[in-house]
Amino acid sequence: MPLRLRPNDPTFYDLFTESANHLVEGARILAELLGSTAGTGLSASQKIAAQMKDAEHAADETTHSIIRRVNSTFVTPFDREDIYRLASDLDDVMDFMEEAVDSVHLFGLEKLPEEIAEQIEVLQRAATLTAETMPRLRTMKDLAEYWIEINRLENTGDAVHRRLIAKLFSGEFDALTVMKVKTVVDLLEAAIDAFEHVANTVEQIAVKES
Amino acid sequence: MPLRLRPNDPTFYDLFTESANHLVEGARILAELLGSTAGTGLSASQKIAAQMKDAEHAADETTHSIIRRVNSTFVTPFDREDIYRLASDLDDVMDFMEEAVDSVHLFGLEKLPEEIAEQIEVLQRAATLTAETMPRLRTMKDLAEYWIEINRLENTGDAVHRRLIAKLFSGEFDALTVMKVKTVVDLLEAAIDAFEHVANTVEQIAVKES
Amino acid sequence: MPLRLRPNDPTFYDLFTESANHLVEGARILAELLGSTAGTGLSASQKIAAQMKDAEHAADETTHSIIRRVNSTFVTPFDREDIYRLASDLDDVMDFMEEAVDSVHLFGLEKLPEEIAEQIEVLQRAATLTAETMPRLRTMKDLAEYWIEINRLENTGDAVHRRLIAKLFSGEFDALTVMKVKTVVDLLEAAIDAFEHVANTVEQIAVKES
Repeated sequence: MPLRLRPNDPTFYDLFTESANHLVEGARILAELLGSTAGTGLSASQKIAAQMKDAEHAADETTHSIIRRVNSTFVTPFDREDIYRLASDLDDVMDFMEEAVDSVHLFGLEKLPEEIAEQIEVLQRAATLTAETMPRLRTMKDLAEYWIEINRLENTGDAVHRRLIAKLFSGEFDALTVMKVKTVVDLLEAAIDAFEHVANTVEQIAVKES
Repeated sequence: MPLRLRPNDPTFYDLFTESANHLVEGARILAELLGSTAGTGLSASQKIAAQMKDAEHAADETTHSIIRRVNSTFVTPFDREDIYRLASDLDDVMDFMEEAVDSVHLFGLEKLPEEIAEQIEVLQRAATLTAETMPRLRTMKDLAEYWIEINRLENTGDAVHRRLIAKLFSGEFDALTVMKVKTVVDLLEAAIDAFEHVANTVEQIAVKES
Repeated sequence: MPLRLRPNDPTFYDLFTESANHLVEGARILAELLGSTAGTGLSASQKIAAQMKDAEHAADETTHSIIRRVNSTFVTPFDREDIYRLASDLDDVMDFMEEAVDSVHLFGLEKLPEEIAEQIEVLQRAATLTAETMPRLRTMKDLAEYWIEINRLENTGDAVHRRLIAKLFSGEFDALTVMKVKTVVDLLEAAIDAFEHVANTVEQIAVKES
């Protein structure tokens, strides 16, 4: 029975949960970047960018495991292309978070507007919620509360993002600083949006399977 | 016969038409923002931003009605995921238009380059055409002229957008003004592109069903 | 037998190859824009922008041929929506390359940072590889090495892009120049990302058909 999975083989649900847990770790590293220094000093940014790079590589490994598993499995729990898409949506979140951290480091930003803490809090909540939800793909039950809450978080993130941009454009900062910080703030917003894409994919899978 | 829809229940076609009509209203509000003042005074922007927020909420309601209807209907007129995608594409247009209006307000922009009127005209035409087309999803007939015209409008919008950016970058404006106006102009271009995504989805549905 | 294709009719594989060959030509024109002048003089940009516009129109023709062929063929080699999506992904690459060239011309940029040559080299390699791969869709064999290499190229492109942005933000350039060059650099990065979308679509088709 070469095709039967051994009992210890991780399932798709395990792998999606692992993937989401990498995002929890990524959001934690983001918070660390901002956190200990309360946004007033980022001298540790190189070390933290390296940590984030490691987290992104680990997440890539999980994504590739999911793709390999899709390619070597006859019966998948839901459509192959939906598995592929969910894996890729989760991966996108990590890419945006990693690029945000790397940008802080590359641009030598030593001070960030404090509202960024609100964006990162949204990311931490969305990551935790997503990681808690992945195992429930098995039963497809009680998923609506997850995507409703992600939508709510995305709305919060959007409002913070608009306030941040308005602040950056207020005349308080020089043009180059505006461009640097805007790049970071836009990447964090993209990461929040990417969590919503994950939730949309989960919703579409649920709609299809229902 | 609990599953039989009552004769007065709105159909998917009605709901998509309703969704597109919200976009007609959104484009009208955009024109109002620019219109009465011929782009030379935007003191009314707060009131208009509030109006736009209401229009966006109404559009969200319609989107949710479509999703709920997909989830509670056994036989859908076309694939569930295509209904979902079309609803979500229509929703995207409104989001970009709303963010454009809100940005004008948030950034306190009191003067916009007059070429923006051309972007808004494209949006108004695309919205009207889309609203006229949605009922024709029922028969799937004569849709090609719709997506061809949307593509033409998108090309026009693209040319206007490029001219606007070149003007913004001409040295005539200070860097902060460039960034503010560019944000608005890019959001309007994103709204136009989003109309093309709607048309692409309609085309793909038609291809699939043919 | 009205539906039998005549032996000389181009197949979907021929058309996808033709589409990818337009990208090879587009990347060549991009290299020409930068090349002969080693990035120090771009007076010929108007002529080259016109050449690029022609290449984009030719690519559009091929895209439309693919769509018409999908609409008039009973049995397609893979799912209609995947054909549609692959055609549209290939089209996106050209659009970004064309807009990059047009932007250099429109903004009157006469000097570009030399690292842009690395972005263009990535685009040339990705285009050539994609054109070589399209005929292999027929057998669906040995495609993995293609998408792995495209992923590698995208990683290279991403690293170059980040270095370029950090350089632009270093304080060496005035704000307006930063915005102009950033627009071009971001469009080239978008073109590289679009090649990855093509590869992802090929991977998903292969996964589905396997």
